[in-house]
Amino acid sequence: MDRLTIVKVGGKVVEEPELLNALLDDFARITGYKMLVHGGGKAATALADRLGLETHMVDGRRITDAAMLEVVTMVYGGLVNKKVVAGLQSRNINALGFTGADLDLIRARRRPVVDIDYGFVGDVENINTRELRLLFRENVVPVIAPLTHDGYGQILNTNADTIASQLAIDLAHHFKVFLFYCFEKRGVLSDPMDDDSVMPELTESAFIENQELGIISTGMIPKLQNGFRALYNGVGEVLITNPANFARGRGTRLLRE
Amino acid sequence: MDRLTIVKVGGKVVEEPELLNALLDDFARITGYKMLVHGGGKAATALADRLGLETHMVDGRRITDAAMLEVVTMVYGGLVNKKVVAGLQSRNINALGFTGADLDLIRARRRPVVDIDYGFVGDVENINTRELRLLFRENVVPVIAPLTHDGYGQILNTNADTIASQLAIDLAHHFKVFLFYCFEKRGVLSDPMDDDSVMPELTESAFIENQELGIISTGMIPKLQNGFRALYNGVGEVLITNPANFARGRGTRLLRE
Repeated sequence: MDRLTIVKVGGKVVEEPELLNALLDDFARITGYKMLVHGGGKAATALADRLGLETHMVDGRRITDAAMLEVVTMVYGGLVNKKVVAGLQSRNINALGFTGADLDLIRARRRPVVDIDYGFVGDVENINTRELRLLFRENVVPVIAPLTHDGYGQILNTNADTIASQLAIDLAHHFKVFLFYCFEKRGVLSDPMDDDSVMPELTESAFIENQELGIISTGMIPKLQNGFRALYNGVGEVLITNPANFARGRGTRLLRE
Repeated sequence: MDRLTIVKVGGKVVEEPELLNALLDDFARITGYKMLVHGGGKAATALADRLGLETHMVDGRRITDAAMLEVVTMVYGGLVNKKVVAGLQSRNINALGFTGADLDLIRARRRPVVDIDYGFVGDVENINTRELRLLFRENVVPVIAPLTHDGYGQILNTNADTIASQLAIDLAHHFKVFLFYCFEKRGVLSDPMDDDSVMPELTESAFIENQELGIISTGMIPKLQNGFRALYNGVGEVLITNPANFARGRGTRLLRE
């Protein structure tokens, strides 16, 4: 099978021009098929602030009322996505921006209200990569914003780590998939106060153990849950890394047991 | 040659949910290949207002400084584009949103400063529809936001009427193209005060005459200039119409002399 590299870029990386440029340089050099999934939460919060909207997060997830949905649609689907697409085009990468609504790529269901009403937040229900796979063959590089749709015209806000993992799992039926989660730190840290304490490898049981000990930070947990889910569902390799190191394959490699 | 219908939707149409829904219903019923080009200027001005940014227009063109470029990128590329894409998907139309940066569809050059500095406004330089044409064959329906790129990573703001006309001219080499400019009025009016005074047909010389007499409104001029340009460059038919009438082919038909 052909190789497909999926790079999820989040945190500050996508929102600081210098970090983003360095990342796009490295991304452009990846051989084989590739795809980029981006976040943009900090920029969304900044725009919400300017519009006088309060940001409420529960377990790292944004409560998305109608006004906040407009903000994330504008920031993820417009500002961040088009900056990345234009940046890749300038590097001779034939990028094409997507949300989950485009080509019906990712359908989601609005999260049911149990204890918390997350608003217009979607849980992924169906992935359709038919046209996406045709585009890979034309050397097109998809750039995915963390938005989905419900099939009835409603855009929904969906976590970018989850989108990267779900796309990786689906595409693993057609490609040998490498999934890189790229953020500010060099990997998963064994000491949250020491940026050099990168764990070179991590198994799921070691992750659970470290999580119980409170060693792994809250923001890291969904990334690792999604990463292990991908690893146990056909994805060839999952690496937690940063822009300076991902191209060299350095960071924390998730291991099957 | 196969038939391709390009519908440019602007003005209030794209920004009022009822008008937009009626338009998308009619658009969904068009047979053959089709594409939608949208504006979003009123929504951009509204967001700029909320952010405390002043909107300056010269001859119907928006002065686009760095802050305004972020606004139009968010509104055109995010908010409006994704609303249209999700709305079409809910009607079983396999829509895919684009800016000119996506698939390198439209390259533009930043407009040189002569008397006025328009800022990040781009004049179209090159159209590349190679991948777009492959997508038509897969029954994909492109939805185009009025943004272009310069090939060096810079997004630029470009008039939607011009984009519709330029794409129509390029695609006329491959398809029999019908170009519909769809706005609030039923067509070009012979009496600006009377919405029923729709001219059924208009030649370029009659347009120039009416323009000199001050009968044709300022906002209409770029639409007609672009329309005649398309008509004289291979486009099969150009119609100025509104959402209630475009599906029936009613409105003002531009005529070759």
